[in-house]
Amino acid sequence: MSILIEKCTKLKEASHLLSAVSTNAKNTGLQLVVDSLRKNTGYILSENEKDVEAARASGTKESLIDRLMLNEARIEGIIESIDTIIKLKDPIWTSKDVWTIENGLTISKMTVPLGVIGIIYESRPNVTVDAFALALKSGNCILLRGSSSAINSNKALVKAIKEGLRSSDISEDVIQLIEDTDRDVVREMLTLNDYIDVIIPRGGADLIRFVVDNATVPTIETGVGNCHIFVDESGKIEDAINIIKNAKVQRPGVCNACEKLLIHENIAEDILPKVYEALKDKVELRGCTNTRKIIDINEATEEDWPIEYLDYILGIKVVSNIDEAISHIQKYGSKHSESIITENYTNANYFLRRVDAAAVYVNASTRFTDGGVFGFGGEMGISTQKIHARGPMGINELVTVKYTIVGSGQIRV
Amino acid sequence: MSILIEKCTKLKEASHLLSAVSTNAKNTGLQLVVDSLRKNTGYILSENEKDVEAARASGTKESLIDRLMLNEARIEGIIESIDTIIKLKDPIWTSKDVWTIENGLTISKMTVPLGVIGIIYESRPNVTVDAFALALKSGNCILLRGSSSAINSNKALVKAIKEGLRSSDISEDVIQLIEDTDRDVVREMLTLNDYIDVIIPRGGADLIRFVVDNATVPTIETGVGNCHIFVDESGKIEDAINIIKNAKVQRPGVCNACEKLLIHENIAEDILPKVYEALKDKVELRGCTNTRKIIDINEATEEDWPIEYLDYILGIKVVSNIDEAISHIQKYGSKHSESIITENYTNANYFLRRVDAAAVYVNASTRFTDGGVFGFGGEMGISTQKIHARGPMGINELVTVKYTIVGSGQIRV
Repeated sequence: MSILIEKCTKLKEASHLLSAVSTNAKNTGLQLVVDSLRKNTGYILSENEKDVEAARASGTKESLIDRLMLNEARIEGIIESIDTIIKLKDPIWTSKDVWTIENGLTISKMTVPLGVIGIIYESRPNVTVDAFALALKSGNCILLRGSSSAINSNKALVKAIKEGLRSSDISEDVIQLIEDTDRDVVREMLTLNDYIDVIIPRGGADLIRFVVDNATVPTIETGVGNCHIFVDESGKIEDAINIIKNAKVQRPGVCNACEKLLIHENIAEDILPKVYEALKDKVELRGCTNTRKIIDINEATEEDWPIEYLDYILGIKVVSNIDEAISHIQKYGSKHSESIITENYTNANYFLRRVDAAAVYVNASTRFTDGGVFGFGGEMGISTQKIHARGPMGINELVTVKYTIVGSGQIRV
Repeated sequence: MSILIEKCTKLKEASHLLSAVSTNAKNTGLQLVVDSLRKNTGYILSENEKDVEAARASGTKESLIDRLMLNEARIEGIIESIDTIIKLKDPIWTSKDVWTIENGLTISKMTVPLGVIGIIYESRPNVTVDAFALALKSGNCILLRGSSSAINSNKALVKAIKEGLRSSDISEDVIQLIEDTDRDVVREMLTLNDYIDVIIPRGGADLIRFVVDNATVPTIETGVGNCHIFVDESGKIEDAINIIKNAKVQRPGVCNACEKLLIHENIAEDILPKVYEALKDKVELRGCTNTRKIIDINEATEEDWPIEYLDYILGIKVVSNIDEAISHIQKYGSKHSESIITENYTNANYFLRRVDAAAVYVNASTRFTDGGVFGFGGEMGISTQKIHARGPMGINELVTVKYTIVGSGQIRV
């Protein structure tokens, strides 16, 4: 039996028990994990330091090192997330649909845990704890496969979590970390349909593609965000500039950052010089032919429109109306987050209805698509596919259903 | 461009429009399809006759020919399903979750269509119409890939549906039938992620395995049902016999039929002879060692426990308590439909909570797991996987969500 199968067997067994554990027991378990993380902060930080040093030694760029690094404040941030999750209503064994059919059978559509969730993620060690806490609160076991660059941090965090669980009524087997950083282990994990109920890849486009192409276990794609802001002709210019600037530069390396700007032709001459002034010091602007007639910036080519830059770059296109904006988004967008800036009531509703994406905004920054912001206490990833869950996945997205049917001897005629 | 890509392109385009079509327009479209099916009944039956004759000529067994055959009564049955679907509440653009966060953004989790649904199915031509009607009511386009044995029937049905749609406000492009019965076309279909949002395989275990192994498009597994009935020591014997007989013989070729019987050891001597009497004329019984000490039947081997017979065969095992019954179901079941016959309140609830399956019953036949019975007006399949939907998939399972976020200039700080 491979180490992976051994871990998966433990998870599957633990998941059968965990599905019926009380909310109190789960919350107490999470609280004991918080205590253990606090107690082990020194150890976790020293192990994290090893990862950071190794990353520095291999010439990793500073923005990635920043994602990898933990400190006391970040540990407190992780603990705050767990606190929020403890306070959330238990999503398990609830129902919004109970009905009785003609022959007297009463059917209830009850929420139950998925079972065993696998997550494959890159860099940020806080995901290790977030994923565990969301899984436990929703009655699921979790199989973690972090990146090799964070392996010491992840081992230390999982050790602290297991230590916390040992003084609780929850088995420490509910969390397992894959320590082998070879890619073949991921390949094996992707086909363990008998052990894993769903796999969530959380990382760059290459990782997600690899998982989707090789998995037989059901997967939920996450994350790639080629997000647009469309400024309609009636949009308030000052709000638009604030929102564009926020969505582009507040944190350009994340999936809900704005990558493309679409401007209604009737306000292009007014707004484009202001966009240029607001962004030119920090952002490389790339424009279509009509944009470049108004502001002197680099050219955006056909290759720009479908890309997620994850960088201080913004593509700009002038469009003749809302339909052209929507068509452009439909053609090039990644169905993540899309925003319209408008004062036109009809256009606002039209955009909300017609744009096909996980999150569609009116008069707001795209940066709000986030489990924390939505009130979910964190997220297992942001789904950009359509089945099962879309947008930030919190505890309410980590459930499936079971129909319970209660009778008194009914047979089918 | 292949014929398949051409059809998929039409579907994708039609799906953008269909997502915003009114309930009235969809219901009128369905009513016009009903009219067309009635008008074309003669033509449909004569085309179906060709399939039936070909099946007879190739020596197909009578039970499969029965699944393939249409007649006036069955066309009326198909029409009744559409009538039910017309009366169902539109599942699109509804919400059970709207909330406002601290900065004033109002977030609504709205239901929207999946987009384009692919279905790969065997034999029964009524699935062609059911799948179309469920898809249209939920705002989805449908790509159909039926079996070669039903190709003439399916072409005739799709022709009649398109004729009905032509006099409606709905584009006839919302439905496309793959007429090429080569398996390579299925293989191509399984990787068209840019066109198809979900693929539902509906058929035997081999078909489902082929789809899951080869698809990069998200899939929903359906149908394999190795269903158990557990008679607890307190179960009413007479009810148990009725239920066992109904679940086994009323229609043994379907996925919600009972395949295995588990008997509490304390009532084995009482009930097994009665089971034998009730079933012996029609059903081959296969028992474990303890069963065969009480009734003289064939031996059930380790190979029997995981199989779906889909035939007049029943495997029987004596268990020492409810936990052994649940463990057996967990180990060998296919997570479809499981039933307990008991008068013990605690055991009934324990079984409902602990058994991990799409449908779990107390004191009723497993045969009720069915979209029609549940009140869904039909089903796109019965999901036995955990993500997205579980159990019978009706119009409420053919949706995804979109978060709409309405603001007044908010930026993230």
